[in-house]
Amino acid sequence: MSITRRGFLAGTAAAVAATASSPIQAADATPKRQSVLKLSSQAGVKGGVVPGASLDEKLAKMEKWGFDAVEVYRDAVGDEKTYLDAIGKTGLKVSAVCFGSMKGALVSELPEKRQEGKAALKQALDTAGQLGAVGVIYVPAFNGETKLTNQEIRQILLDTLPEIGEYAVKAKTRLLLEPLNRKEAFFLRQVADAASICRDCNNPGVCLMGDFYHMGIEETSDLGAFISAGDYLHHVHLASRTRVLPGQDERSFVDGFRGLKMIGYQDYCSFECGVRGDRDVEIPKSMAFLREQWAQASV
Amino acid sequence: MSITRRGFLAGTAAAVAATASSPIQAADATPKRQSVLKLSSQAGVKGGVVPGASLDEKLAKMEKWGFDAVEVYRDAVGDEKTYLDAIGKTGLKVSAVCFGSMKGALVSELPEKRQEGKAALKQALDTAGQLGAVGVIYVPAFNGETKLTNQEIRQILLDTLPEIGEYAVKAKTRLLLEPLNRKEAFFLRQVADAASICRDCNNPGVCLMGDFYHMGIEETSDLGAFISAGDYLHHVHLASRTRVLPGQDERSFVDGFRGLKMIGYQDYCSFECGVRGDRDVEIPKSMAFLREQWAQASV
Repeated sequence: MSITRRGFLAGTAAAVAATASSPIQAADATPKRQSVLKLSSQAGVKGGVVPGASLDEKLAKMEKWGFDAVEVYRDAVGDEKTYLDAIGKTGLKVSAVCFGSMKGALVSELPEKRQEGKAALKQALDTAGQLGAVGVIYVPAFNGETKLTNQEIRQILLDTLPEIGEYAVKAKTRLLLEPLNRKEAFFLRQVADAASICRDCNNPGVCLMGDFYHMGIEETSDLGAFISAGDYLHHVHLASRTRVLPGQDERSFVDGFRGLKMIGYQDYCSFECGVRGDRDVEIPKSMAFLREQWAQASV
Repeated sequence: MSITRRGFLAGTAAAVAATASSPIQAADATPKRQSVLKLSSQAGVKGGVVPGASLDEKLAKMEKWGFDAVEVYRDAVGDEKTYLDAIGKTGLKVSAVCFGSMKGALVSELPEKRQEGKAALKQALDTAGQLGAVGVIYVPAFNGETKLTNQEIRQILLDTLPEIGEYAVKAKTRLLLEPLNRKEAFFLRQVADAASICRDCNNPGVCLMGDFYHMGIEETSDLGAFISAGDYLHHVHLASRTRVLPGQDERSFVDGFRGLKMIGYQDYCSFECGVRGDRDVEIPKSMAFLREQWAQASV
């Protein structure tokens, strides 16, 4: 809109200062690497998408079906050995640790809670590092978990995450911001917004993920969202429009997969969803559906 | 993140309800029309980017330089005849009416202000219709203009804009939401967020614009942002990283122009910026620079 003289003067000063700095837009949409669809699914000692009486049984099934990796839950934090032993019996990798919000601790209105949140997040990053996971999935706050405003939450993240990111890099993993939909979290609804936080943090350990279910509600374009995520994108959750297996409703993944190919995505796409019908039948069917959608995604 | 049983049941119900509804993602990135770079610039009786002692002089210069259209300021509201007469002497069209925020009236914490805002916006839409403009550029609120939170502002827009959009359609024009950067407006910083408001309003008169200057601060990818804007995009502001003429600093427009081509953009790209140096020399130079950047934008 209207431009003030002050704005122009500030702009001129910034121009002088910027000659030595890197370009502002960090996301890069040039396809520089070939992408491959690497499938993962959530599975834990308790629960998960894949059926089985034990973790061993679930993982064996996943390997047989052609999964590349498993996404573990936060019960893996402090119980790394159980997971390392079980996964070590298979050829599977660990895609991510699905950690959560710690009840919004890191962005709480109470400073002491923020300290607790920071410590818990670092512990989860240690676990992710030990498991060789791409990252720790982190939600700043579900609705109602903090009294702070959008602007205040964002500022705390910018003040806090670089330290967390540095810790993550040392642990050989990453923090992965997860945008949700407004019914779950009003703060951080869109992939491009998470990408702008990563850009502002400017730390290789502060990255993001995208979830097709939430994106179906909040994004106008999966393609646009993943292009905006660019090199910050290191994990993807798979679920249909009604949050069941891909292929179990009309939700298309082609446009999003096109985005993944365009940015040269190298990490995993992981099931976080319910299942309609017999899991032993429906999960392999959904995997085949996804491979077809991937093939249809031309760039 | 973790999925509740309630979530799944709600999902299943939604699936049943959705069979008759349109797909959620409204932005369409399939290039369906050839795009052409149509250049516009702000110019008014007073002020503007183009130099000249009078509006007639400015418009004559613009026509000579090869501009397609002129973007007028809010002084055109109530003074339509002056503009219609002057523009009628040229082959120029009117791209947009740069209107502003009305001091945040439409999203004020005071309901009576909101009524005033609605009336003022309708008047501006009448003007835009009379001038044959693509739309009225509207900023919900600059920082400090409303006491409401992001969520409250968004809700007011969803409650109010469909009526405004309907009025716009009858006036043969559109409302154009403009995302700014955080220093000017914390609410509505990203193009994808504006697109999500348009999608939620679901009214052909409620659309958006993008400004390369603000996008340089808030977006991680011009390409991703414009793809997310898709068919909702009906105006673009041109300015460099330091808010001077394109070409006067290192800011590239290629990635954004690639986005415009990918979405089959049909409207104008309009100068809203300062100028370093002699305007009579620098403006034609910038136009040539933009045409080169357009040619470099391959899809």
